[in-house]
Amino acid sequence: MKKSNYRSYICKGVNNSISLLKSNRFIIENITILKGGRAQKNKKLKTLLNDKDVFVLDKNEFYKQFSDERKQDIIIQFSGELVKKTIPDFKNRKNVCLLALDRIEDPQNFGQIIRTAECGGINGIIFSKHHSAPITETVLKVSQGAFTNINIYEVTNLKQSINQLKKNDFWIIGLENQINSKPWYAVDYSPKTVIVLGSEGKGMRKTIMQACDFIATIPMQGNTGSLNVSASASAVIFERLRQKMEDR
Amino acid sequence: MKKSNYRSYICKGVNNSISLLKSNRFIIENITILKGGRAQKNKKLKTLLNDKDVFVLDKNEFYKQFSDERKQDIIIQFSGELVKKTIPDFKNRKNVCLLALDRIEDPQNFGQIIRTAECGGINGIIFSKHHSAPITETVLKVSQGAFTNINIYEVTNLKQSINQLKKNDFWIIGLENQINSKPWYAVDYSPKTVIVLGSEGKGMRKTIMQACDFIATIPMQGNTGSLNVSASASAVIFERLRQKMEDR
Repeated sequence: MKKSNYRSYICKGVNNSISLLKSNRFIIENITILKGGRAQKNKKLKTLLNDKDVFVLDKNEFYKQFSDERKQDIIIQFSGELVKKTIPDFKNRKNVCLLALDRIEDPQNFGQIIRTAECGGINGIIFSKHHSAPITETVLKVSQGAFTNINIYEVTNLKQSINQLKKNDFWIIGLENQINSKPWYAVDYSPKTVIVLGSEGKGMRKTIMQACDFIATIPMQGNTGSLNVSASASAVIFERLRQKMEDR
Repeated sequence: MKKSNYRSYICKGVNNSISLLKSNRFIIENITILKGGRAQKNKKLKTLLNDKDVFVLDKNEFYKQFSDERKQDIIIQFSGELVKKTIPDFKNRKNVCLLALDRIEDPQNFGQIIRTAECGGINGIIFSKHHSAPITETVLKVSQGAFTNINIYEVTNLKQSINQLKKNDFWIIGLENQINSKPWYAVDYSPKTVIVLGSEGKGMRKTIMQACDFIATIPMQGNTGSLNVSASASAVIFERLRQKMEDR
């Protein structure tokens, strides 16, 4: 077992583990596999695990150790700089798009947003250390390995970080239902942009909203009050991708 | 308590219950509220519950009866035709868009898709009785009341239903990663359309894919293999809405 100065995380499930083992950003501390399970039969995993020490446990032992993991066949403990503390200035980079999450408290939503952002070509995710779900096992599990391929920045003061990005030529676009806001597709995402998403129940904090250059909205067509924040994220991320692809 | 010929369902949580009580599609069988909880303090709920019999239980009694519901303050048992068995022909209707779900097995995804579809102006959701998650408490909870405002059709043979809709002038658009498919935004959603989404792990069945007029794809930008199906649904539903709104 190698030692690391960073905190340890738990990664569960076949897809997550494949992404983790392919990435060389992390230190693998130990790997446990269920005997006869899907993970043991998976060819990609077999290749990736070839040169590694693996604990293979039978059902009884595996579930004794990981009692809540009935659907997971592989558990990897790893450490590394999963979360960065400093946002680069992105000078000389064009068409960079970051997400900023203000008070996303639900780990399912956080994990989904990481996955969708990585699939949609977002360059990084910023979240505030306070008022947000921390990076838990659930967040990582739901992200389906996307956390290994996208930069995640944890900041102590989200407003300060947003203002810093503004100084570095980013446009700040908040997503919120509000009068005088533009429809989400009427915003130009081609400059350097930060898309800010607020919390599930309470939306964005006022001070964060004041820091935005534009407010974009997705007008609700039915009677349900609001979209889930991960669904909003998906709509906006892929609208940006559409603009980028059609522009080529 | 009124009697109904339809099966009973359980609805949990404040938002869900508000939607349910506003709707007059269902028969409310009984309502249980946690004493001193959020539901009891909610003004909208108070008005809606004004003329109804409500069981108010203190913490001990409430959690004895609903042991797994720590975060829910109101539980409503109701019955009614939540799921319809016959799809109308939508004659003389323009710009109708339906979703067809092939083998969506995860209740979280099913519930999310119902919510996103209702928010995005989709006119109905078709799912196959076999190979799909049934409408469970989780599906309803995650839908956040959207199930009261959108038609959900359960069919025994999805391919047959799709072919019938084709005869009724619908275009069938499958969402699947495949060579020779169009980017999702290059499809015209303005005629009557059915958007078909396949299962989380296995995608769409071949026979269903063969019934599609077009295959649309959302090209992955990162290294994560695929989007969650509810995130894909959101991207496509709001691309359709964008086209509709920009066309006005």
